[in-house]
Amino acid sequence: MNLLRDLPDASMAEIAQRLAGGASVRIERVVSLGQASPPGSWYDQDEAEFVVVLAGAARLRFADEEEPRRLAPGDYLDIAPHRRHRVDWTDPAIPTVWLAVFYR
Amino acid sequence: MNLLRDLPDASMAEIAQRLAGGASVRIERVVSLGQASPPGSWYDQDEAEFVVVLAGAARLRFADEEEPRRLAPGDYLDIAPHRRHRVDWTDPAIPTVWLAVFYR
Repeated sequence: MNLLRDLPDASMAEIAQRLAGGASVRIERVVSLGQASPPGSWYDQDEAEFVVVLAGAARLRFADEEEPRRLAPGDYLDIAPHRRHRVDWTDPAIPTVWLAVFYR
Repeated sequence: MNLLRDLPDASMAEIAQRLAGGASVRIERVVSLGQASPPGSWYDQDEAEFVVVLAGAARLRFADEEEPRRLAPGDYLDIAPHRRHRVDWTDPAIPTVWLAVFYR
């Protein structure tokens, strides 16, 4: 099983796949292809999220920061619960593969 | 913060660094450079472990399987609690970078 192969077709919508998890953790692969959060919309999650970009490129913005973070393969963020954030941009030319761990 | 850069020198011993976590989850980067589990020794963990190889190469063996799994970048395993396993080999020429999520 490989996170970088057999990617689903994300041309119509971002695709999240659950890989593993337990009572208080959920591990997902997310594949994006040009998607971004709708204008003005923010994630505001009850859980913490550790996220790493495995392939592609993205820009993620926190509501409490002026500039988006530019994310390339290997870049990771640990997002505290209820820290508002949005995906400003993902590469429209190649799939962006995220590994996300939601936890409490 | 990037998982593939600023790697610690693992030439003397495998190095684990805690990246994030909570009450029931621990997320670590582990860097290996030729290390393997001592002969005859097995990991037997109370927690489940989701592990992905981000760089390098390794062979991981389960006690209940004949052949080791060969792991390359992107390959992942979800190891159930108390499923005995060992690292048979990691590449001695280049660092192997693991992302490990221990969870309950």
